[in-house]
Amino acid sequence: MKRRDFLKASMAGAAVLSMPKTMQAMPAPGDIPADKNSTIKPDAKEEPFHLGMAGFTFRHFDIDQTLDFMQKLNVHYLCIKDFHLPLDSNEEQIAAFKAKLAKANVIGYGVGPIYMKSEAEVDRAFAYAKRVGVNLLVGVPNYELLDYTEKVVKQYDIRLAIHLHGPDMPLYPDATDIWNNVKDRDPRMGMCLDIGHNLRYGSDSLRDLKKYHTRVFDMHMKDVTGNTKANHSVEVGRGVIDFAQYVRIMRKVKYTGSVSLEYEKDMKTPFNGIAESVGYFRGICAATR
Amino acid sequence: MKRRDFLKASMAGAAVLSMPKTMQAMPAPGDIPADKNSTIKPDAKEEPFHLGMAGFTFRHFDIDQTLDFMQKLNVHYLCIKDFHLPLDSNEEQIAAFKAKLAKANVIGYGVGPIYMKSEAEVDRAFAYAKRVGVNLLVGVPNYELLDYTEKVVKQYDIRLAIHLHGPDMPLYPDATDIWNNVKDRDPRMGMCLDIGHNLRYGSDSLRDLKKYHTRVFDMHMKDVTGNTKANHSVEVGRGVIDFAQYVRIMRKVKYTGSVSLEYEKDMKTPFNGIAESVGYFRGICAATR
Repeated sequence: MKRRDFLKASMAGAAVLSMPKTMQAMPAPGDIPADKNSTIKPDAKEEPFHLGMAGFTFRHFDIDQTLDFMQKLNVHYLCIKDFHLPLDSNEEQIAAFKAKLAKANVIGYGVGPIYMKSEAEVDRAFAYAKRVGVNLLVGVPNYELLDYTEKVVKQYDIRLAIHLHGPDMPLYPDATDIWNNVKDRDPRMGMCLDIGHNLRYGSDSLRDLKKYHTRVFDMHMKDVTGNTKANHSVEVGRGVIDFAQYVRIMRKVKYTGSVSLEYEKDMKTPFNGIAESVGYFRGICAATR
Repeated sequence: MKRRDFLKASMAGAAVLSMPKTMQAMPAPGDIPADKNSTIKPDAKEEPFHLGMAGFTFRHFDIDQTLDFMQKLNVHYLCIKDFHLPLDSNEEQIAAFKAKLAKANVIGYGVGPIYMKSEAEVDRAFAYAKRVGVNLLVGVPNYELLDYTEKVVKQYDIRLAIHLHGPDMPLYPDATDIWNNVKDRDPRMGMCLDIGHNLRYGSDSLRDLKKYHTRVFDMHMKDVTGNTKANHSVEVGRGVIDFAQYVRIMRKVKYTGSVSLEYEKDMKTPFNGIAESVGYFRGICAATR
């Protein structure tokens, strides 16, 4: 649960308990003050990271449906995908879009993934990120565009998180490949570590988070059925990924970015699966604090 | 995840890994065998308890909708509520109902809650449980019927789990009240510990599970916003209950019954909330193993 909700719930309880006992709704014989009741969990430390949603999760839904569902789920961070806010959006369209997000208490923390196959596409992507007002662009520039992209990163002072896609695409298959391509470049060039696709490539996502965390700017969270290409996405918790260790490592390396669910199963009817996945992740976080 | 699914997933991975490397779907450069890949969680010990659903959760849905959703959620235990299988069902109707459950890979592990306000209603409830073929009846006999109910428990050799309803009803408000009413009676008389209602009465559900576990035959799992009557049910994880401790105590006292979600928020549109709750509980279980 979000800390503020927890506090709200706790304070509501505390307010009732501070009333004279006879005024309480139900002065039960076994009444135990909230702070002495072992069933009530202690206040939780805030996590360094935050739970978010990769816009791609909602590819079959418009932004209103997306935000409505995110509000119900109590998730407040979204990586904006271009099918919700096209790359050629003008200032007015962007302002209207951002007003919707603000109304839903959602922060658009980045844009992407955006594929970039030419210098013009690199320029367009970064100009878009600047107009949207984010300092994180999740993107996939062709390898031969990395020198040019580095210049644009410096020009805009916007971080680039290169997205890896595992065995399904030749471009940036895993975290090691991205690391090798960015480690000697501007420190604003890093990766969006997709823990599921990285594992399906045969790589070790938890080890990679430890090794490369200085360049991990964003993460796509998903669960998968195994560590080969033949495996596929499932509800978080139903696959093979060790989420308890994942969360412990995020805390250890002080990952401060978003852990954004990219749910790729049943994409036309994803809501129950998304809710189950979010619940599982929150359960893991709660139990490992 | 269910152990059998985990094993299935693991074995699928193992089968691929036992093939010659060149035959694998994607012989990635960084390939790490599954058992050496720290991202893959170790095989989990089976829990002594099992996750289930209180039939009441689906009061606005018929048994087909209920089973369809339970299959999607991968939940296999249901406490049968009389709006799905009426108390006067005959053998044929019961057989048809049980065939539906079997087809959905769902075990009807008990019936109830059933309120019993006369000896005739006690008789009817136990005769129903016997026809259904379960050895657990979740029920609420009036206090003055407890002597008679004890005789019927012995006659049928069916366990009675008395359901507590917290501050909302005068009958059996909390676990201590049930304990005091059954502790000197036949050991087949115990309780369905509703951890949310018990807490809303001001009682300490985790302490009560430890104290009374020998007579806890069933549990209704829910989360609530605090420990007074004014508080209400929410998605598991969003309230105040310490589920990590709850699971640890269930293991410690070797609770072998069902932990059945009784979801009482948004009962006409409960599916996302149920999925989130199930996910949270599974995350808690996974992270505390």
